[in-house]
Amino acid sequence: MSGALRQHVARLEVATPGRGTFDVTARVAAAVQESGIRRGLVTVFLHHTSASLILCENADPAVRADLERFFAELVPDGDPRFAHDDEGPDDMPAHVRAILTQSSQTMPIRGGRLDLGTWQGLYLYEHRRAAHRRRLTVTVVGDDGE
Amino acid sequence: MSGALRQHVARLEVATPGRGTFDVTARVAAAVQESGIRRGLVTVFLHHTSASLILCENADPAVRADLERFFAELVPDGDPRFAHDDEGPDDMPAHVRAILTQSSQTMPIRGGRLDLGTWQGLYLYEHRRAAHRRRLTVTVVGDDGE
Amino acid sequence: MSGALRQHVARLEVATPGRGTFDVTARVAAAVQESGIRRGLVTVFLHHTSASLILCENADPAVRADLERFFAELVPDGDPRFAHDDEGPDDMPAHVRAILTQSSQTMPIRGGRLDLGTWQGLYLYEHRRAAHRRRLTVTVVGDDGE
Repeated sequence: MSGALRQHVARLEVATPGRGTFDVTARVAAAVQESGIRRGLVTVFLHHTSASLILCENADPAVRADLERFFAELVPDGDPRFAHDDEGPDDMPAHVRAILTQSSQTMPIRGGRLDLGTWQGLYLYEHRRAAHRRRLTVTVVGDDGE
Repeated sequence: MSGALRQHVARLEVATPGRGTFDVTARVAAAVQESGIRRGLVTVFLHHTSASLILCENADPAVRADLERFFAELVPDGDPRFAHDDEGPDDMPAHVRAILTQSSQTMPIRGGRLDLGTWQGLYLYEHRRAAHRRRLTVTVVGDDGE
Repeated sequence: MSGALRQHVARLEVATPGRGTFDVTARVAAAVQESGIRRGLVTVFLHHTSASLILCENADPAVRADLERFFAELVPDGDPRFAHDDEGPDDMPAHVRAILTQSSQTMPIRGGRLDLGTWQGLYLYEHRRAAHRRRLTVTVVGDDGE
């Protein structure tokens, strides 16, 4: 018997200094531990369309630098194909990058802890060049089972 | 005390006139309200591999026109690299576009309402040129908490 | 009355012979049936950053061959733009491919069965050239409703 399913909701804010990847694994892991839930799923949702959430290799920072180089060439800032540039040359590229990645990630919980692979980290990927405040909702659903 | 977790399932059909993005936010928000669930998650799943679900900026239609231009160049219709063209030059590109985006989206519910960011809209992205009927399953899971 | 929500967790391992797509639909469907849950959601999570989970057309194998050709040109092995190549020329491309696709998929359950579209299959997409053992967590959440 693992008890009834329950949920716990936490709301986070992340201040980004501009384009780049920012590790939010520890903050999400803290919300999971706070929930007291032993086994289940945690879903992190980002309330924005010009940033995203990625699961990325967490050991070598060169991985995230290479990733940024890849996206900067695939979806160039100031690309003349884009009509939408109300907020500058990085406006539309930020939306495209967000759609090519994800606005949410769902991850398992095991033994009361966020159960990522050894090399997986959860990153907020800011696609705009200017600093932003980004809102996230963390929803933990699970029970007391192992 | 927020009451037990419960779920509500709704099935939707969307008729698309051909390639393009179609706002389904209001229909999903209606399913959330119908559920009576106050706090939790809603998952929308699309039962097809040549269309997708995206969360996109919802204010300026130029964003979605630019997005379509981007995908049309990244994965061109009739690309001679593609062997699979049973249903025409847009067949394989539709599958690639769907895999570069998503077949489902999971979003939070707060205060009984779909809790998207101010500029987030949920769109069905039809990747085929011909009209199609697309099936979606909307699953709402949550409780009565705030 | 559909009974209380409950969950069931299964852990799978998939041995991949190297780069390619491997159908895991039947194994996930078996975990769903084992759960006894009639209606709800199943989330499959991959604990790795150099492989991914995709929902893809399941009838014509040419679709997955074309998909591989597309990714091999979009993110070339040995691309000189990439600094991170600790594990070889396919190391960084594997991470980029994983981020352009997904580490998890959430799908509906209906009538006690995995409810995919007619042409949808769930594939583990191995992005590394060498053989790997890949871990997945399958979480089924739902009730007895129809």
